[in-house]
Amino acid sequence: MEKMGRNAIVGQSGGPTAVINSSLVGVFQAAKSRGAQHVYGMRYGVKGLLEEQVVDLSDTLRDNLDIEILKRTPASYLGSCRYKLPVPAEDPALYEKLFGILKKLDVGYFFYIGGNDSMDTISKLSDYACMTGSDIKFMGVPKTIDNDLMNTDHTPGYGSAAKYIGAIMKEITRDSLVYGTRNVTIVEVMGRNAGWLTGAAALAKAEDCEGVDMICLPEVAFDIDHFIERLDVLQRAKAGVVIAVSEGVRVHDGRYVCELTEELGPVDAFGHKTLTGAARFLANKAVRELGCKARAIELSTLQRCSSHMASRVDITEAFQVGGAAAKAAFEGHSGEMVGLRRLSNDPYQCTTELHDIHTIANFEKKVPGEWITPDGVGVTQEFLAYMRPLIQAELTPIYVDGLPRHIYIK
Amino acid sequence: MEKMGRNAIVGQSGGPTAVINSSLVGVFQAAKSRGAQHVYGMRYGVKGLLEEQVVDLSDTLRDNLDIEILKRTPASYLGSCRYKLPVPAEDPALYEKLFGILKKLDVGYFFYIGGNDSMDTISKLSDYACMTGSDIKFMGVPKTIDNDLMNTDHTPGYGSAAKYIGAIMKEITRDSLVYGTRNVTIVEVMGRNAGWLTGAAALAKAEDCEGVDMICLPEVAFDIDHFIERLDVLQRAKAGVVIAVSEGVRVHDGRYVCELTEELGPVDAFGHKTLTGAARFLANKAVRELGCKARAIELSTLQRCSSHMASRVDITEAFQVGGAAAKAAFEGHSGEMVGLRRLSNDPYQCTTELHDIHTIANFEKKVPGEWITPDGVGVTQEFLAYMRPLIQAELTPIYVDGLPRHIYIK
Repeated sequence: MEKMGRNAIVGQSGGPTAVINSSLVGVFQAAKSRGAQHVYGMRYGVKGLLEEQVVDLSDTLRDNLDIEILKRTPASYLGSCRYKLPVPAEDPALYEKLFGILKKLDVGYFFYIGGNDSMDTISKLSDYACMTGSDIKFMGVPKTIDNDLMNTDHTPGYGSAAKYIGAIMKEITRDSLVYGTRNVTIVEVMGRNAGWLTGAAALAKAEDCEGVDMICLPEVAFDIDHFIERLDVLQRAKAGVVIAVSEGVRVHDGRYVCELTEELGPVDAFGHKTLTGAARFLANKAVRELGCKARAIELSTLQRCSSHMASRVDITEAFQVGGAAAKAAFEGHSGEMVGLRRLSNDPYQCTTELHDIHTIANFEKKVPGEWITPDGVGVTQEFLAYMRPLIQAELTPIYVDGLPRHIYIK
Repeated sequence: MEKMGRNAIVGQSGGPTAVINSSLVGVFQAAKSRGAQHVYGMRYGVKGLLEEQVVDLSDTLRDNLDIEILKRTPASYLGSCRYKLPVPAEDPALYEKLFGILKKLDVGYFFYIGGNDSMDTISKLSDYACMTGSDIKFMGVPKTIDNDLMNTDHTPGYGSAAKYIGAIMKEITRDSLVYGTRNVTIVEVMGRNAGWLTGAAALAKAEDCEGVDMICLPEVAFDIDHFIERLDVLQRAKAGVVIAVSEGVRVHDGRYVCELTEELGPVDAFGHKTLTGAARFLANKAVRELGCKARAIELSTLQRCSSHMASRVDITEAFQVGGAAAKAAFEGHSGEMVGLRRLSNDPYQCTTELHDIHTIANFEKKVPGEWITPDGVGVTQEFLAYMRPLIQAELTPIYVDGLPRHIYIK
């Protein structure tokens, strides 16, 4: 067996979150304190690594202020990729190249912060290391706003996105009631297959807010006629109806609602289908069928990069899973992901634990059916009790000249 | 002349802002301290007043904590309306009714917080009072995120919206550069006729942010071919192009870009025109003509209700104009609006002054041509120097259970 490399390398992969950089800091600091001489960062994940796009994090993060600002910087500091590694048998040269680069960098510890596809990468790389007798340790660090990873109570990134969605839904609710006249606002939330984010709209309801009127998760087959009927009752009964709808709601035959625009909605002059999004489709439909005033709001990427509204619990846990991954790797673990295990809700206590990477990659965790109300357009108290600890407390942005300060690699 | 009423009444009108409630607090506290027995609030502006929908603000705001939370609550606490008063000759009965209600409430001071249409209301009511010998004092308090009111250096509400837009553009810029691959983000900003808000996108550029690549104001005739040509050059030269475009950009013949969807874009199956917004139209066009990845983000109502990102300078000035209006009315002024006058930029100093309401109502202030760069897709240092003081400092939300706390009339 080769002599163990002395350095660590860390990459970020998949869609960004508001706190993915906290996990990067967690890995960086824990690896450093355990004796890594260099902690390298892959630019643009494994894809960049294959082009030897690497930075030494000690060069780019000069002091503790940089670290503090990095925790408050949205998106992936190192850059990211959406790149699925082939299996080794398909492209052995690629694996040889990649391991050659790691050897050149004298890397002994490899960390990948990401979601399902990233865990698949860790799974393949650690398997390949096993097969070839490489001593490099490969660890997965979870992140995704979608909260759809298996074997972790929740994923870092989810709490901050949920906090943002809850806060924005409160602001939208206030705005929608300004004129006291009948109007409908349909807000489209991310999460194509799992309703964790859309469910966060339920957080808006409190003693200082009426809350949203319907919550449509992708876990429930979407019946457009039913939806319009319910909406009609709501908009007759109250001013300012607010609805949260997942971008991924589908009708009974499995088609996404946003795909139905082909039939009912816009087709451009060249005959191209223009996907308009579920909320826009439903708002147009409401205007047409109910004659009410309706608008669509897409939270779009704002919900995954809203560092200015990050949850402190989330940032802290993101940091912890990074640190726990480094600790485990330096203790000899490989082919595992750090998960979060909730010990109790009241008081909220959560710890980290390790899971075999093969039990995680390529599975999607959905909202349990029993957390959705029987009418299919709301969530239960259990769901709320699950979410609420994850949005607590803040990490105030560091404002410079009136705007939150970030850091990036120049 | 009748005996002067002892009470004050205040209303909010037009679109909400993040700080319009600070002006309400300013009027309330200053009127109280000057001896008003009751300070009434009109629900839903003059329209609600005509239906005698009135609250006593001392009943709904119980203590100083309520006041502090109200300053942090978005949208119009009292509700609003979009209602243009007819001239007295057209509907004398309406004026008689309205003044009758004011008499019944023993109102001596009338305050209206709003934009152009609201100042028109103050203008008509104070003229009518003059003509009929009523002693009621009518004062206008400016607000609008659009910043398009005459005779005030800027309007309360603008600074907070500008701060939000600057902060969000920074976050979007970070997000857009994550993959290091070619992509275009077109962000649509409010302001149909004036580019004050769209120009705020320029605030994103700083030593920690690359800033946006084009800023398209409604003051500049929009040439779609030119735009696509420029965009092509940009997207070939760099990953993550970010563009801010006003919802109100128009082509040379005066049509809004968002109206062109009739020709080029979506028409639904029933032949109805579906307005898709300028950003969506341009993103679709970029995809079609340049073959690049492009997305549209509409900041929509989020930019006018983002109290969680309010500017402290803005909140403070909103409070001041409310207080100054009350002071002026109690000193005998009527038919005037409180304006803001900037004394200096460095250090920033600003004071209030009074303007005859007739010089304000129904005029729109646009971005001066010399504050737009010669290429028509950027703003000058002068514009930045104008905006920057208005976004300084914060009024941190009061978080309860993880979300910003608001207050509303139950």
